[in-house]
Amino acid sequence: MPRKPPVIHATRLVDASRFLRVEQVDLEFSNGERRTYERLKGSGLGAVIIVPVRDAETVLLVREYGVGVNRYELGLPKGRLDHDETIEQGADRELKEEVGYGARELRVIGRLSLSPAYMTHETYVVLAQDLYPERLPGDEPEELEVVPWKFAELHKLLGREDVTEGRSIAALFMAREYLAGRFRPA
Amino acid sequence: MPRKPPVIHATRLVDASRFLRVEQVDLEFSNGERRTYERLKGSGLGAVIIVPVRDAETVLLVREYGVGVNRYELGLPKGRLDHDETIEQGADRELKEEVGYGARELRVIGRLSLSPAYMTHETYVVLAQDLYPERLPGDEPEELEVVPWKFAELHKLLGREDVTEGRSIAALFMAREYLAGRFRPA
Repeated sequence: MPRKPPVIHATRLVDASRFLRVEQVDLEFSNGERRTYERLKGSGLGAVIIVPVRDAETVLLVREYGVGVNRYELGLPKGRLDHDETIEQGADRELKEEVGYGARELRVIGRLSLSPAYMTHETYVVLAQDLYPERLPGDEPEELEVVPWKFAELHKLLGREDVTEGRSIAALFMAREYLAGRFRPA
Repeated sequence: MPRKPPVIHATRLVDASRFLRVEQVDLEFSNGERRTYERLKGSGLGAVIIVPVRDAETVLLVREYGVGVNRYELGLPKGRLDHDETIEQGADRELKEEVGYGARELRVIGRLSLSPAYMTHETYVVLAQDLYPERLPGDEPEELEVVPWKFAELHKLLGREDVTEGRSIAALFMAREYLAGRFRPA
C-alpha cells in the first residue's frame, strides 16, 4: 500500500537560503552581444546519483518523498558529497544509508548537470556493483522502500506519474548502455 | 570550429532574484517525524523540452552556451512557457526560435522534474514531427548551431564532456522508446 504523503503544516517564503546562492554574470558573446544572466550556485562539493546493480538484470530503485514535487517519487538513490570523501566513498555511504547495501565495486560512468542555463550543480553517476547488505543511519525522516526493477523494462518506468526525475531516467539508460558495452566513460 | 565561449566581465552575488524564490516547508511524515525543508519555486508556467524529429532516424540537437556550467552544451531545445499559450504552442515557438523549424505534429510524451527533493520545476517533453522551415526571432544572444544526430547512436552522446543535461538525455531516450512503440504516454 502506498505511504501517505507527509502533512504540510506551514510554508513561508524566505529571503536567504541555507544551500543556494544567486549570482549575476555579465557576459559578452563572441559576436559582441552582451547579456546579464542569473545562475544558482550549488554548495560546491557536488552530488552523486547511484545505480545499484543487484544482478546483471536488476537495478534497485527507491521510493522517496520529494518536497519539491510534493509526492513520492520512484528513482535512484542520491545525495550530496560530504567533506573529506571521494565521489566513490560518498556514493557508497549514500547507498548504505538509503538502500541498505554497500558495494565492492564503484565506478563513475558520467556526470549530469541539472540545468546548464542557470544552475552550476553537477551530479556524478556512479555504478555500484557487487553489493552486500550493510546499513548506515542517515538523515532520512523514514526508511525508504526499495523497489527492484529489470533493466530490460526501463520503458515501463516512462509512463508513470511518479517517475519524472531527468537525472534518474538519464542515469538508468546510461547504466544500461554501459552494461551492454555500448559506451565507455571518457 | 567550436565557438569561443563568452567572456565573463563580472559576477556578483545577489540577495533577490528575478526568477527564483525560496520557500520553507514544515512537514510531518506519516511516522510522526518532523522536518523543515527548503524548496525552490519555479515561475509557475512550466517549461518545455522539445525532441525535433527530422526523419524517422534523426533528431535535431542544438549547441547552446549555458552560463550555469559556463560551456557550450549539446542538447535539446527548450524554454519557458509564455502566458496565453498551450504546451504545444510554446514548444512550436521555441522550435522556431532556436532551431528554425515549425512542426505540424506536436505531442506531449512526458513530464520531467529537475530535482524532486528541492525544486518545484516541471518540464514537458514534446515530440515534434513533420517539420517545415520557419524561423521566429527569439531572445538568444546568438544563432544556435543545429546538429543532426541519429537515434541509433544516442549511446555516442553519453561519453561526451558537452552532453550532461539530465533532462536532454532522458527526453532523447524517452523519444526513442516512444518511436519504437515501447511506451505510450498515460
